[in-house]
Amino acid sequence: MSTSNNYCVIMAGGVGSRFWPMSTQKYPKQFQDILGTGRTMIQQTYDRISQIVPPKNIFVITNKEYVSLTEQQLPELRSQNIVGEPMMKNTAVCNIYMAKKIADINPNANMIILPADHLILKEKIFHKKIELAFNLAEKNDYLITLGIKPTRPDTGFGYIQFVDKKNSQYFKVKTFTEKPDLEIAQTFLDSGDFLWNAGIFIWSVKSILAAFDTHLEEMAQQFDSCEYNSNEEERCIETIYPKVLKISIDNGILEKAKNVHVIPADLGWSDLGTWTSIYENAKKNDDKNAVSSKHILTYNSKGNMISLKNKNKAAIIDGLKNYIIVDTEKALLICPRENDQHIKEYVQDLKSLKNGDKFL
Amino acid sequence: MSTSNNYCVIMAGGVGSRFWPMSTQKYPKQFQDILGTGRTMIQQTYDRISQIVPPKNIFVITNKEYVSLTEQQLPELRSQNIVGEPMMKNTAVCNIYMAKKIADINPNANMIILPADHLILKEKIFHKKIELAFNLAEKNDYLITLGIKPTRPDTGFGYIQFVDKKNSQYFKVKTFTEKPDLEIAQTFLDSGDFLWNAGIFIWSVKSILAAFDTHLEEMAQQFDSCEYNSNEEERCIETIYPKVLKISIDNGILEKAKNVHVIPADLGWSDLGTWTSIYENAKKNDDKNAVSSKHILTYNSKGNMISLKNKNKAAIIDGLKNYIIVDTEKALLICPRENDQHIKEYVQDLKSLKNGDKFL
Repeated sequence: MSTSNNYCVIMAGGVGSRFWPMSTQKYPKQFQDILGTGRTMIQQTYDRISQIVPPKNIFVITNKEYVSLTEQQLPELRSQNIVGEPMMKNTAVCNIYMAKKIADINPNANMIILPADHLILKEKIFHKKIELAFNLAEKNDYLITLGIKPTRPDTGFGYIQFVDKKNSQYFKVKTFTEKPDLEIAQTFLDSGDFLWNAGIFIWSVKSILAAFDTHLEEMAQQFDSCEYNSNEEERCIETIYPKVLKISIDNGILEKAKNVHVIPADLGWSDLGTWTSIYENAKKNDDKNAVSSKHILTYNSKGNMISLKNKNKAAIIDGLKNYIIVDTEKALLICPRENDQHIKEYVQDLKSLKNGDKFL
Repeated sequence: MSTSNNYCVIMAGGVGSRFWPMSTQKYPKQFQDILGTGRTMIQQTYDRISQIVPPKNIFVITNKEYVSLTEQQLPELRSQNIVGEPMMKNTAVCNIYMAKKIADINPNANMIILPADHLILKEKIFHKKIELAFNLAEKNDYLITLGIKPTRPDTGFGYIQFVDKKNSQYFKVKTFTEKPDLEIAQTFLDSGDFLWNAGIFIWSVKSILAAFDTHLEEMAQQFDSCEYNSNEEERCIETIYPKVLKISIDNGILEKAKNVHVIPADLGWSDLGTWTSIYENAKKNDDKNAVSSKHILTYNSKGNMISLKNKNKAAIIDGLKNYIIVDTEKALLICPRENDQHIKEYVQDLKSLKNGDKFL
């Protein structure tokens, strides 16, 4: 297999509202150095993938609004490799769009499509699993996803049940269950034959386009009408987008297709989807406080996630246990860590205030 | 009595570190609109006193550093009425300095000297009591202070024990006790014959200068050497200041003098010396939260003092009871209301950090 057939699409269109106030409409999470490593999430994702996919084969698909942010943060990318969507349309749409675009360049392409804002600590294993996946995708009509061993009954993820076949590095997927309730999630966890869907997919453009033809036929036809990588592409896409179905790739394709396979992968993975997951992945001091700067002094305080966007700002925190404290120039958030799933609702409440949009 | 003999000195030299981070070295509390009334504390003090003392007779003594802030906030004052001290020297020194300066203008002057940063809700009573005090000071060699009926065993105030003489509007002072411990403060409160010293003093320049001659003789001699209201004054004061004793007017004069009298005054007074006192005097919503803007949303939160300096900033506060939350561009403070007396210590800790001064 020549790596020149291997492509990558980084999906960077989300708003990250569970991460407010750090993540905002103008500056979403993927463009921020959430963990303080010196590189933003999208830069980390690019750094990780560019070691196994030639940079000229790496694409970013994001909202139109974030094209210039992407250009700033990934100056290595050619401008034609940064694709702006005219509106948010969930993941099925950006998958078919990018598959069409890449198939037009190289009909024998294999592609990995993955989110810009996930944490992967075990880079070597990631590379090994992706190479395996590209090999499988090259030779088989497989839709491949990476599966993460669940560590808690999280109700925010998709769960993959697989058909066990001893001593294999990959398995056929039996069922896909998006966001189960807590009781079911616990059953899945206990059974041992479920994996989390990490949202990292590998397939040939042929396989995924065939799957669209079968399972999302109307969408496939809509996307057939454009001439990709031409001057007409942008105008054509702008005509299609308002009409296409808003559905996730999971619901639209993976739950229906019969050729889905999973590669279990111990990646040190986190979707960094909540402040709590950031807290868990952050460096903590002796009091289990994760603090973002040296000017944060804590008293009688333990287990807090304290993040000040302005590194030249001081904080004194007294008497808080297991809180999230996030301060930006636009907003201050203080809430118990266990309430981090309420942040989307808080943000809705704020939005409903007069001129509330300006805080988002 | 002609009011043209009546003078006022507003003391505005403090740093207000118990009010950090709202009050900072560069912008102390007295120059801020702490309660959100539309006028800063020094402006409120000026507004209150200018109704009974002719504006040309009103002086402000402050640190040199704050002369221009004072000029900006009180454009009604003539520039020669704003006096900058070359360094912090406690209250005895600024008292004698201003008494000397005013005596040089009018040897028959009476003066009221009061802090710039106190709250007085009952203005009418204040005016009545001050008129009584000026009358007494005009006719008698009295050092007069206003006494506030204590409502709690506060250990941060001075307590005045007076000699009860039925049906009088003023009493001779028996003892002065600065900052007693809690047990003693409780005894004082229970006994009923103690008042809080509000730090508002009225006397004739003759009486107070005589008291300095008796009780702080060396300081009196040092201040004798200057020619006030001349071109030489500033240079002379700069020579004296480094050498003079750092002592409060309470310790230096009032605890020793035999002619101190107190006028009990129900002023709706607060020294606004702590965040808790600000909380008590602030408008509160149904959840007993005192919030500084419309963009502050609270959940499961009661009894908090929430103050954001930037009125265009939002805050989400979940799960806090009886906390102080203060946010400025330089610093964030979160601490239980009951710990507000620790703020000075927090600030000391912050100061000891590398470049910690920049947060003060």
